[in-house]
Amino acid sequence: MRKLFEAKLQQVGDDLVTMSKMVEVAVEKAGQALLTADLSLAQEVIAGDRLIDVLQRELDERCVLLLAQQSPVATDLRLVVSALRMSMTLERMGDLARHVAEVARSRYPGKAIRPAEEATFAAMVTAARQVSGEVVTLLETRDLELAAAIERDDDVLDDLHAETFAALLAPRWDGTVQEAIDITLVGRYLERFGDHATTIARRIVFLVTGEPNTPIVG
Amino acid sequence: MRKLFEAKLQQVGDDLVTMSKMVEVAVEKAGQALLTADLSLAQEVIAGDRLIDVLQRELDERCVLLLAQQSPVATDLRLVVSALRMSMTLERMGDLARHVAEVARSRYPGKAIRPAEEATFAAMVTAARQVSGEVVTLLETRDLELAAAIERDDDVLDDLHAETFAALLAPRWDGTVQEAIDITLVGRYLERFGDHATTIARRIVFLVTGEPNTPIVG
Repeated sequence: MRKLFEAKLQQVGDDLVTMSKMVEVAVEKAGQALLTADLSLAQEVIAGDRLIDVLQRELDERCVLLLAQQSPVATDLRLVVSALRMSMTLERMGDLARHVAEVARSRYPGKAIRPAEEATFAAMVTAARQVSGEVVTLLETRDLELAAAIERDDDVLDDLHAETFAALLAPRWDGTVQEAIDITLVGRYLERFGDHATTIARRIVFLVTGEPNTPIVG
Repeated sequence: MRKLFEAKLQQVGDDLVTMSKMVEVAVEKAGQALLTADLSLAQEVIAGDRLIDVLQRELDERCVLLLAQQSPVATDLRLVVSALRMSMTLERMGDLARHVAEVARSRYPGKAIRPAEEATFAAMVTAARQVSGEVVTLLETRDLELAAAIERDDDVLDDLHAETFAALLAPRWDGTVQEAIDITLVGRYLERFGDHATTIARRIVFLVTGEPNTPIVG
């Protein structure tokens, strides 16, 4: 019985890792689509988001079955409940990657991001991919140093996000209103990756250490 | 045993209703703060969001205890799992109300929304409060007609959201970049109320009818 339970719990953990890898790929591709005005890459992310949604539902269904058939308690129960929550967060990260891809698609064959802001957005994409990759490894290893790294990288994203507003509000800003809207929205989408990754990091820290939850971001 | 379980399940349901009422009040106040540049109202929403967060954690803790102590199955189990998910969604709606209030606070004593866009944003606030109020009643009654009404009101919010972009992109637009940023962000925050309310509506429909989940929004 215990062995069967552990196998099923392992499967839930594996599903979370799979979802997080799909998210990492999605943000990477969405960022590329945004920065290089790559329509087919954008379409791929938009279509691929459905797969993340399907995986979330399968994972959630597996968690509900696990709860129904095994009635886990204590740490095992917390693991399953955390998986249910983290799957929602990962699904949301997939949506955000899709939103970035949708902006890229709307502006095609033009670019949503002007050359003047390209460096900042390239850095945001890198940081969003970075936290997403750290989430994959954190889910695989539960290495608490990674959880701390995620919080630091969330700060990097916040700083870069502030830079996008500074660029928009600088006297030298000479972009169009559409460009201001795109910068505002894409900046917000990318910045949210850090918040969601931090939420997952804190859940893992709680699972591993049992320390009371620090305030949940976002 | 069954009676105790039902009392606890009822408590979880009551907590969800309480959370949803707090969200409804928060969006109402945040909208007022935004439209009338009312600083104390904005502060109230920002401070009050912590209470929603605390309530969410208590509710989640109650759900975990319920799962651990009662090992519910079938419909009961789905109720508890849905409550865990809906509490996340309600908590997120509270965050969005806080974000609206934060924009209002940042612009004080000025107004974030110019007179030209005030009517559209007043309508968005009304619609966001409307869906939030419908969520309260839906959680209390599980009346499926309300679930349908929420989907319609989400469409209203989407249309109003499109209006804000149309205003920004019209040749007559003569606002500042800061105003364009505020309109973009606040429009997005308010529009998200519709998505979240729809997510809750679909979860309730699923609980009541057992019909396979329609695609989850947001």
